[in-house]
Amino acid sequence: MKTVPLVVTGLGNVGRAFFSLLREKADDLERRYGLGLEILAVARAEGCFYSGGPLEVRQISKSGEPWTSGNPAWREGMRVTDVIGERGPGGCLVECTLSNLETGEPGMSYITAAFHGGWHAAAASKGALVVGLPALKALAAESGVLLKFSGATAAALPTLDVGLFSLAGARIEGIQGILNGTSNYILTRMGEGLDYGEALKEAQDKGIAEPNPAHDVEGWDTAGKILLITNACLDTEYVLKDVQVRGIAGLAVDFVRTARREGRSVKLLATAAPGRKGGRWSLDVRPSLIDATDPLAHVDGTEKGITFLTDSMGSVTVTGGRSNPRGAAAALLKDIINIYRPPF
Amino acid sequence: MKTVPLVVTGLGNVGRAFFSLLREKADDLERRYGLGLEILAVARAEGCFYSGGPLEVRQISKSGEPWTSGNPAWREGMRVTDVIGERGPGGCLVECTLSNLETGEPGMSYITAAFHGGWHAAAASKGALVVGLPALKALAAESGVLLKFSGATAAALPTLDVGLFSLAGARIEGIQGILNGTSNYILTRMGEGLDYGEALKEAQDKGIAEPNPAHDVEGWDTAGKILLITNACLDTEYVLKDVQVRGIAGLAVDFVRTARREGRSVKLLATAAPGRKGGRWSLDVRPSLIDATDPLAHVDGTEKGITFLTDSMGSVTVTGGRSNPRGAAAALLKDIINIYRPPF
Repeated sequence: MKTVPLVVTGLGNVGRAFFSLLREKADDLERRYGLGLEILAVARAEGCFYSGGPLEVRQISKSGEPWTSGNPAWREGMRVTDVIGERGPGGCLVECTLSNLETGEPGMSYITAAFHGGWHAAAASKGALVVGLPALKALAAESGVLLKFSGATAAALPTLDVGLFSLAGARIEGIQGILNGTSNYILTRMGEGLDYGEALKEAQDKGIAEPNPAHDVEGWDTAGKILLITNACLDTEYVLKDVQVRGIAGLAVDFVRTARREGRSVKLLATAAPGRKGGRWSLDVRPSLIDATDPLAHVDGTEKGITFLTDSMGSVTVTGGRSNPRGAAAALLKDIINIYRPPF
Repeated sequence: MKTVPLVVTGLGNVGRAFFSLLREKADDLERRYGLGLEILAVARAEGCFYSGGPLEVRQISKSGEPWTSGNPAWREGMRVTDVIGERGPGGCLVECTLSNLETGEPGMSYITAAFHGGWHAAAASKGALVVGLPALKALAAESGVLLKFSGATAAALPTLDVGLFSLAGARIEGIQGILNGTSNYILTRMGEGLDYGEALKEAQDKGIAEPNPAHDVEGWDTAGKILLITNACLDTEYVLKDVQVRGIAGLAVDFVRTARREGRSVKLLATAAPGRKGGRWSLDVRPSLIDATDPLAHVDGTEKGITFLTDSMGSVTVTGGRSNPRGAAAALLKDIINIYRPPF
């Protein structure tokens, strides 16, 4: 069995779901992939939880909250670089912070530290990647490590896997996706008769939408995802301001109802389309009418989906994948397995 | 650039489409993956086309037919083993014969020869795999080479990629697929009013169904695919007689029309479902009613699709992917790229 040390950054819902999933899957990972994954440290802004051996969730939190003061595993001032320095190269950073889409921090510093120490990184947070994917890819290549980010690009819906692995050798000629479960839930409920405010409130009551839903309903979450998917699959270097973004906030219910009467749906669609004669691609996010025959037309509720148009494989659509912290944790785990497993 | 020698077995539609695709993609493969793929030989029952260097399609066929007599590149009696022996290990066999589902030949002998010579194999034909996947996997592992067969499991629709790569770490709890384009086309047209005989004839006139359509409409093609997908993704060793098979041949049009009036569809569904308490899985193929909300309900015409149910990632469905020789060739190329590309 190959033992792999991990450092988890951030202890929000995704980080904690990752802890649970790892415990649940330990035997299975050993049996199926010959892997023993151990959480060596959990990093926060002020220090690290670190005890020199594998951490259990009970060592780092009480009543579900991070527990620092008086905790024998808490090392005030310890940094990710210190942990990696003690262990040596070959581990994997598991980036679960809430990183800022403008500065990329704190994820950017964590990932950079990992690469400099010869560690791979699997990210569930978008900030660092939206801000600096090309630079991070270059640094990973220089350092001989890998950067994976399924968890940041629609979690358990395999967007990058399909674009990079399943479509290897095909030329991608267009991408279209429903990439935000919250917006899609609101639009689905509007199609069933609720107005925007009612649908949003229902989504908030059910814990689907955040108390401050701006990031989702104004389209920025979707914009970050289509940006990352495009840059990863096409090896381009577009930036967030290249994406034309219009969200669903305040959308008139009549638009959705009329569409439905005509047998069509309104979806918050992210699109990447090639420019003419090899020019720049256009990236946009906006509420769009789609026909009932479109493979994304029946992606409803909190479901997500993506279609790739290609030259040699036709069009390939993937839909589904759990949209919650457990789904994001499963996407992180998948990426880590695919970094370390033997060729198959 | 890494140069990789290939031996193609079989010169049917898929083998020829592979030749064209490779020529079309040569520059792109070098630029994106650092790979130079060269067809070193084409093997037939009686000998090989072989000239010691990369073969062009004009060296091996005239008017689209294999050209042996008087051909300077034709070596009567030369075997795959001889070609591999001259070149040494590290190449890849591209298996495109029409192999028998009962004997597995001639694919079985070709793949075995490749493994013994230290070559990988990418297969578009199912015969050898349906008959002996577990033994072939064991031999590949012993020989330190890889066996890929996307082309044999719904071609450009990524079934194995999703099951093995995108769902790594998740437990698959069920599989359901529409895996045969010909049957799905016939059922789609029956839903639009044609009876079975009319729909079959139309499919034959359009080149979608074979003159002898038994393999497709009696469900054996679908059965072979669900068997291979199940055995590959679950690491099981079921055999073809474990699959309960009922095809669509002679299906009453009333069944399809009634379903449609009730908002449902009839699909030739392949299902793999776990037994109780970890017992044997049940595998079956039969015309099945599915609801309009099923993610496979709108997979119409020659399209295919597959749904995986999992414990940690929810359900993931993939649909589409070109269903013709070019799509199968693209699947072969994808597998070859994924064998040789650097980690990403």
